[in-house]
Amino acid sequence: MSYFEQHQTIISRAIEALHQRTFYAQYPEFPSPKIYGETADADGRAKFQSVVGKQFNELLQDQPSSWIGQEESPYMQEPLNIQYPQFETEVLISRALESFDQWRKIPPEERASLLVESLEKIKSRFFEIAYATMHTTGQGYMMAFQASGPHAADRALEAIATGLEEQQRFPRKVNWEKPMPKYSIKLKKEWRVIPKGISLVIGCSTFPTWNSVPGIYASLVTGNPVLVKPHPGAILPIAIFVAEIQKVFREAGLNPNICQLVVDTFEKPAAVGLAEHPEVKLIDFTGNSEFGGYLETLPGKTVFTEKTGVNSVILDSVDDIDKVVQNLAFSVTLYSGQMCTAPQNIYITESGIIMGGESISISQFSEKLSAAINGIVDNPKAGPFVLGAIQSKDTCDRIEHAHRLAGKVCLASRSIEHPMFKNARVATPMVLQLDADQKEIYSKELFGPIVLLIKTNDVEQSIALAKEQAETNGAISCGAYTVNQEIRDNIADQMSLAYTPVSFNFTGGIYVNQHAGFSDFHVTGGNPAGNASFTNPEFVIKRFTWVGLRDAVS
Amino acid sequence: MSYFEQHQTIISRAIEALHQRTFYAQYPEFPSPKIYGETADADGRAKFQSVVGKQFNELLQDQPSSWIGQEESPYMQEPLNIQYPQFETEVLISRALESFDQWRKIPPEERASLLVESLEKIKSRFFEIAYATMHTTGQGYMMAFQASGPHAADRALEAIATGLEEQQRFPRKVNWEKPMPKYSIKLKKEWRVIPKGISLVIGCSTFPTWNSVPGIYASLVTGNPVLVKPHPGAILPIAIFVAEIQKVFREAGLNPNICQLVVDTFEKPAAVGLAEHPEVKLIDFTGNSEFGGYLETLPGKTVFTEKTGVNSVILDSVDDIDKVVQNLAFSVTLYSGQMCTAPQNIYITESGIIMGGESISISQFSEKLSAAINGIVDNPKAGPFVLGAIQSKDTCDRIEHAHRLAGKVCLASRSIEHPMFKNARVATPMVLQLDADQKEIYSKELFGPIVLLIKTNDVEQSIALAKEQAETNGAISCGAYTVNQEIRDNIADQMSLAYTPVSFNFTGGIYVNQHAGFSDFHVTGGNPAGNASFTNPEFVIKRFTWVGLRDAVS
Repeated sequence: MSYFEQHQTIISRAIEALHQRTFYAQYPEFPSPKIYGETADADGRAKFQSVVGKQFNELLQDQPSSWIGQEESPYMQEPLNIQYPQFETEVLISRALESFDQWRKIPPEERASLLVESLEKIKSRFFEIAYATMHTTGQGYMMAFQASGPHAADRALEAIATGLEEQQRFPRKVNWEKPMPKYSIKLKKEWRVIPKGISLVIGCSTFPTWNSVPGIYASLVTGNPVLVKPHPGAILPIAIFVAEIQKVFREAGLNPNICQLVVDTFEKPAAVGLAEHPEVKLIDFTGNSEFGGYLETLPGKTVFTEKTGVNSVILDSVDDIDKVVQNLAFSVTLYSGQMCTAPQNIYITESGIIMGGESISISQFSEKLSAAINGIVDNPKAGPFVLGAIQSKDTCDRIEHAHRLAGKVCLASRSIEHPMFKNARVATPMVLQLDADQKEIYSKELFGPIVLLIKTNDVEQSIALAKEQAETNGAISCGAYTVNQEIRDNIADQMSLAYTPVSFNFTGGIYVNQHAGFSDFHVTGGNPAGNASFTNPEFVIKRFTWVGLRDAVS
Repeated sequence: MSYFEQHQTIISRAIEALHQRTFYAQYPEFPSPKIYGETADADGRAKFQSVVGKQFNELLQDQPSSWIGQEESPYMQEPLNIQYPQFETEVLISRALESFDQWRKIPPEERASLLVESLEKIKSRFFEIAYATMHTTGQGYMMAFQASGPHAADRALEAIATGLEEQQRFPRKVNWEKPMPKYSIKLKKEWRVIPKGISLVIGCSTFPTWNSVPGIYASLVTGNPVLVKPHPGAILPIAIFVAEIQKVFREAGLNPNICQLVVDTFEKPAAVGLAEHPEVKLIDFTGNSEFGGYLETLPGKTVFTEKTGVNSVILDSVDDIDKVVQNLAFSVTLYSGQMCTAPQNIYITESGIIMGGESISISQFSEKLSAAINGIVDNPKAGPFVLGAIQSKDTCDRIEHAHRLAGKVCLASRSIEHPMFKNARVATPMVLQLDADQKEIYSKELFGPIVLLIKTNDVEQSIALAKEQAETNGAISCGAYTVNQEIRDNIADQMSLAYTPVSFNFTGGIYVNQHAGFSDFHVTGGNPAGNASFTNPEFVIKRFTWVGLRDAVS
């Protein structure tokens, strides 16, 4: 392979970055023409538009039983009418098994190199993937580009690097010699990395590539054939990834079915049949807690989940309340709160937030937050692009229902007109104020632009509630604002015990929602929000087994 | 701590050994007076005898609710009458929780150092532990010394080293700076290793220390308090370990309840109540598949099991059949086959074993094997000491039952007189010949000195059956004899896919039963014989969670 050397350099640098955990990115996150080419954006948009209403015919999977596709654009509220090939479960499984013997025998270093080649190919399609992501998830353009393109590719590279490193941790072969009183015993020993078997990756509707590529690439680099089953509402972005992976395999003379796309419909979902198939050994899932919980109990499977959570913000004391409010307003407005890391429960003590000698009451904070949200939303150069559109009608129902909950609506959700898409499904954040004893309302994820302000007795109660929510309902992020070192240390200690990462005193251009590849472990795996983490060693180690062979030396 | 530096050297060397995987041992395996002292053996025996019939009062666990103990010596078939303190489940749990905050805050390096100190203390008690092991498990003196003393201590050190290394894989703190078009974002990041919580280690009756210390030390080094619940028939050997660990903790000013012994009775087992307790997060288990399988399904627990398996030997072709027979005879005679690594199913093709131009039929092999077993058993200087005694009466029943199975008894089991213990429960290996279609007989573990010779059509069938047994009923070892490179490679490939280590062409002083610390992964974790492996990175990684903290830099 001509690119083998070059890609080994990319991988070595990535492995080094894993351990440095300082800032690192292989794929530039700004959709800059200087980096990606002057016509890249326009070409990507045209490429996306050319597939709308057509068959997606890039996959190297022969003889489909039919062509299906139900994606709709949240910006146009119209079907995209893109058709994908559909296959029977047994066809998918037998093709995966057929490819397994070939793939498992490719050395890990070569597997890693082939997978990096696929990312390099995908790089030239980031803009197309961005438009595909916008018109399936409702993400704004910038997020769609960054999350589905470079950030996803970096997460994929991270999984490749972690996976390769784990497979290189022990020697392939050694001569073993044990000294005995009168002679020595000699053995030749060999260790093999044996993949677990067919891997199923089940995607979600809001982050179709970012949340799926870590599992796909982690399974592939460790030698497992992969079935990629996206959410029926968000197929195209990951279909482009799969198509490019398949092309790289074919070019290398390998069976493209090592990585297959599985498309299903809302009416006839394929996940259960595949997950319960005895030949499926590995399952990656992003989505709701109910289905994730079911998958986790399947016997004989190794399962990686990212489910729902109740993310908290603890407000104790601040240097500058306006900067804090500005930061939080952006965090809850970004992609209309449809991020697994978006804050939901904001805890404020009844004595208010301390700033210098002053105290900001929960009502004052609520007014400031509402004003800041409106400030973003009503800015025509920001609002529509930060909010994006609402992926699922269910989220709109949830928002409507939230207005009727037993609490004080401080800010109602509303729609605004999108300058480019008149028919976009838009909902701005709502703010609801509750008391600490209204636990039945705030003890679950209210996915979408729903912010709860919860009045507590004191900061100890705020911490205890945030911890309890994380332990019982899961949490992927926690924001905390305090200028008191003792309280900071207590929050760090208590939230750590609930296996929840904490971001302290974020203001300016960094938000609690963001988790950076090569540095932040996304989801800890320690609380009900998920049992896995992008990408820690456990995420790849469980995809293969070390087997030792010993030969007597005569 | 005065020994901190010195122990860090032991640990660094151990970490290096993990990755070399060549021969390495910290604790010398021969009970040599030159190493352990002229009077060590006699002192150890006296120390053991002094506790028989008494209370074991070395534990630093106060206020027991009663004193209990039901151990019996398989050599004397008499109760040992050693009494251990018993505690209510809630007392054990609350004491463990009380100690947790203290233990989790000790840095991993110091935890590792304290644990090595415990091993250094235990080293002076190896002989006492050897006698305690003999008179609970029935092991012969040499095995009792090696397995429960130095080999167990090496496995414990291996777990400490692996655990420390995994906790050191990522930096504790970094400055993270992300360059942006007009400015840069700065964060201070910190990563913490957060232990899972209370760890329960459930021991077995045959290897009370060797099989339990990896879990105990892996949980401790990663910051979890541990409850050690030995088999009610084999308590004393591990009680001595726990007592020494507790003394080290007390000397260091720590709560000795970080590691507690839990003793129960045959009539009122404590395992289920503890395993299902919501505060117990980690479970290590060695024992039968039924209970292990139940533990693996407990929701919300991280479970490590070593269960039963059906180990195979594939006989294809040999250089010297007599050397092979001698080796196998020893493997099945050693500790009367009461090892999880002992061979059970020996597959031989109907055309026989190839040696040069000749072929040795299954009947000829069976005669040779029987003669070799008798040769060991009837040698008064070897037989009684290699065989040891039978730990459980159930094993004797199983042997008796095996004589009535539908097969040809080539060699019957019998008793021989032990020169030192007239009342010892002894059973020599039996050999039963079966056809490949008598699957109902050979498709389960027949724990003890029961050897099955299975006649197959050809070597492909031998391999297929060995693989199928490993996949469906588990396997911890596989021996294979072939001088044909192609067949060797096929066995290696196929048994690897069943996640079973293979030992090729062992003759002389090395046996398929032996798995060496710092080199051989014991149990792969990939087939039904167990879901964990001593000690691979997964064995320790799952005992803690990485949690990241981020502080804005103002």
